[in-house]
Amino acid sequence: MEVTARAPGKIILAGEHAVVHGCAAVASSIDLYTSVSLRLRSEDEDTIKLLLNDIGLDFSWSIRRIKEVLSHLEQRFPESKIGLASGVYAFLWLYTSILGFKPATVVVSSELPLGAGLGSSAAYCVALSAALLALSAPVELDKSQKGWFTLKAEAELVNKWAFEGEKIIHGRPSGVDNSVSTFGNVIKFKSGVMTRIDSNMPLRMLITNTKVGRDTKALVANVSARKSRHPGVMCSVLNAIEAISDEWCTIIQSNAVDDLCLSANEEKLGELMEMNQGLLFSIGVSHASIETILQTTMKYKLASKLTGAGGGGCVLTLLPTHVSGAVIDKLVEELESFGFQCFTAGIGGKGAQISFDHSS
Amino acid sequence: MEVTARAPGKIILAGEHAVVHGCAAVASSIDLYTSVSLRLRSEDEDTIKLLLNDIGLDFSWSIRRIKEVLSHLEQRFPESKIGLASGVYAFLWLYTSILGFKPATVVVSSELPLGAGLGSSAAYCVALSAALLALSAPVELDKSQKGWFTLKAEAELVNKWAFEGEKIIHGRPSGVDNSVSTFGNVIKFKSGVMTRIDSNMPLRMLITNTKVGRDTKALVANVSARKSRHPGVMCSVLNAIEAISDEWCTIIQSNAVDDLCLSANEEKLGELMEMNQGLLFSIGVSHASIETILQTTMKYKLASKLTGAGGGGCVLTLLPTHVSGAVIDKLVEELESFGFQCFTAGIGGKGAQISFDHSS
Repeated sequence: MEVTARAPGKIILAGEHAVVHGCAAVASSIDLYTSVSLRLRSEDEDTIKLLLNDIGLDFSWSIRRIKEVLSHLEQRFPESKIGLASGVYAFLWLYTSILGFKPATVVVSSELPLGAGLGSSAAYCVALSAALLALSAPVELDKSQKGWFTLKAEAELVNKWAFEGEKIIHGRPSGVDNSVSTFGNVIKFKSGVMTRIDSNMPLRMLITNTKVGRDTKALVANVSARKSRHPGVMCSVLNAIEAISDEWCTIIQSNAVDDLCLSANEEKLGELMEMNQGLLFSIGVSHASIETILQTTMKYKLASKLTGAGGGGCVLTLLPTHVSGAVIDKLVEELESFGFQCFTAGIGGKGAQISFDHSS
Repeated sequence: MEVTARAPGKIILAGEHAVVHGCAAVASSIDLYTSVSLRLRSEDEDTIKLLLNDIGLDFSWSIRRIKEVLSHLEQRFPESKIGLASGVYAFLWLYTSILGFKPATVVVSSELPLGAGLGSSAAYCVALSAALLALSAPVELDKSQKGWFTLKAEAELVNKWAFEGEKIIHGRPSGVDNSVSTFGNVIKFKSGVMTRIDSNMPLRMLITNTKVGRDTKALVANVSARKSRHPGVMCSVLNAIEAISDEWCTIIQSNAVDDLCLSANEEKLGELMEMNQGLLFSIGVSHASIETILQTTMKYKLASKLTGAGGGGCVLTLLPTHVSGAVIDKLVEELESFGFQCFTAGIGGKGAQISFDHSS
């Protein structure tokens, strides 16, 4: 029997950077997933295999070798850096901590670009933890269920393990990414406190990956330096960003009674995104590649903002319901002609899900 | 004898749009001038001539015709619109009100683009009023002075007449443009109160004219509408803009004790401009042409912001002292290749000046 778990990526809808200074931010799941399939092998096959489909790398360790690697990991833990190695360490640690040293083949594949601020590492940790826990003793799931089913009581446990995996990969993660990936929907977070927001609004975004790598730590430090040079201005700017986060939550929780009301709410969210982008520009975290995307979507009268740390990374463009597929195709074509990578994604969907395959 | 008066244009350094909502704004003179030369003709020549050099139009009226036109003006006054006609009416009205019906030739030439938000109409009214008052009975100037001299006691009178001229051209001007043009330097204005700021800082800007005409009234109305839709966000944004205006005044009034200090102040002003631009974007008054200029100056690591109403008009780029002429030339060449028009201008210079020519 094979179990497959999938977990969504995330975007920051509002409040990035401001959250570092104690203001509210709003994150949401997107319906782009990382999937982890796990098939236990017979006990006499003494290996664990990890196949990373997207980067075309396969690993195969004997159980003895894994024990060596893990002792190595214990020593290296505090120095771990984001990258392939830390992702593999996280795998070995989560696997052996949850399932012990059972032989298996694990296949990872993802729709999320890596290192682009869309929470790919959290989705990986959540999907991996969910798949492992689904086959572990303490979790009792009805394995006869068909198709995808959403985690319920066991979600908290998945989230906790995923957070431990994130720590191996990121050092000091905020816990927002794995929470959004586990529980889905929208989460408001402020000063370390997370609140689940139940969105009533169907929303679609175009996500454009600039493919420009960025140094999140340096960007955060630059904002702090600017704040110390211009405290009065920056304080008001951060207040404005917090007000945007608050307004986002109010709008997506409201019940749009008809299409007219939905359309008005979409328009308001577009304005909030435009304002948020202006404020992010004003704190100095935009980038030429981001501005190019803004210029392009502006031609189509669509509102955009960077998401995450800025300085590259990804840009969100709101796709209101009235915008036709043909228009979106044209926009995507234009953006991709610059070398950017586009995804369309539904916002605020389900969190981690599991499916059992009984065919084998 | 001929008298020539020249009066500078103006830019808004900070606070445009916010000023409409009761926040402070800061305007400055620029060393680009409109000049008016006036030569009285013998009494038997029964005409007044007006030569508008920049647009290549010459007018010649008999005194009798002028009286007719003025009676016409009285009737049309409330409907007057910005444009050539209102500029000519302003001329006739100022001329006859100050000098009566003496025959003369008046030549107007200007370094300022018309209708681009650089205060060309105010500079015209100020220079015209100064030239006329210089030859009128109540103003006693030492006509033996050589070269340009700045108006002193008589500046207030010039400013009052110029404001009347601005009313003919604009309907309901704020009075800021003519005050900056008359007195020069920097003026902070808030809720209708103007305060002169004595800048101690030599500053140069690149002014890029997008040549995109804009509807100031519509832009102002759009900002108000956005404020009513998002009061919380907009209130903080306007506060941030006011804090920028305040910081501008503090920095340019401070005495930079050395080059290092000057350079640090220039850097701060650059950041204020970048922040201001982000905030102007967030209130919705930027424009594709403005963003193109920003993208270009960003490549040269130079800070820019729109000045005035936005939606086109002009963009300011701070030229710090360390930036070489070669770099500026390259930037100007690139900007002009897009069809924009560039000027470099010193900021906060003298106001209206007069010069007598005794050679003829």
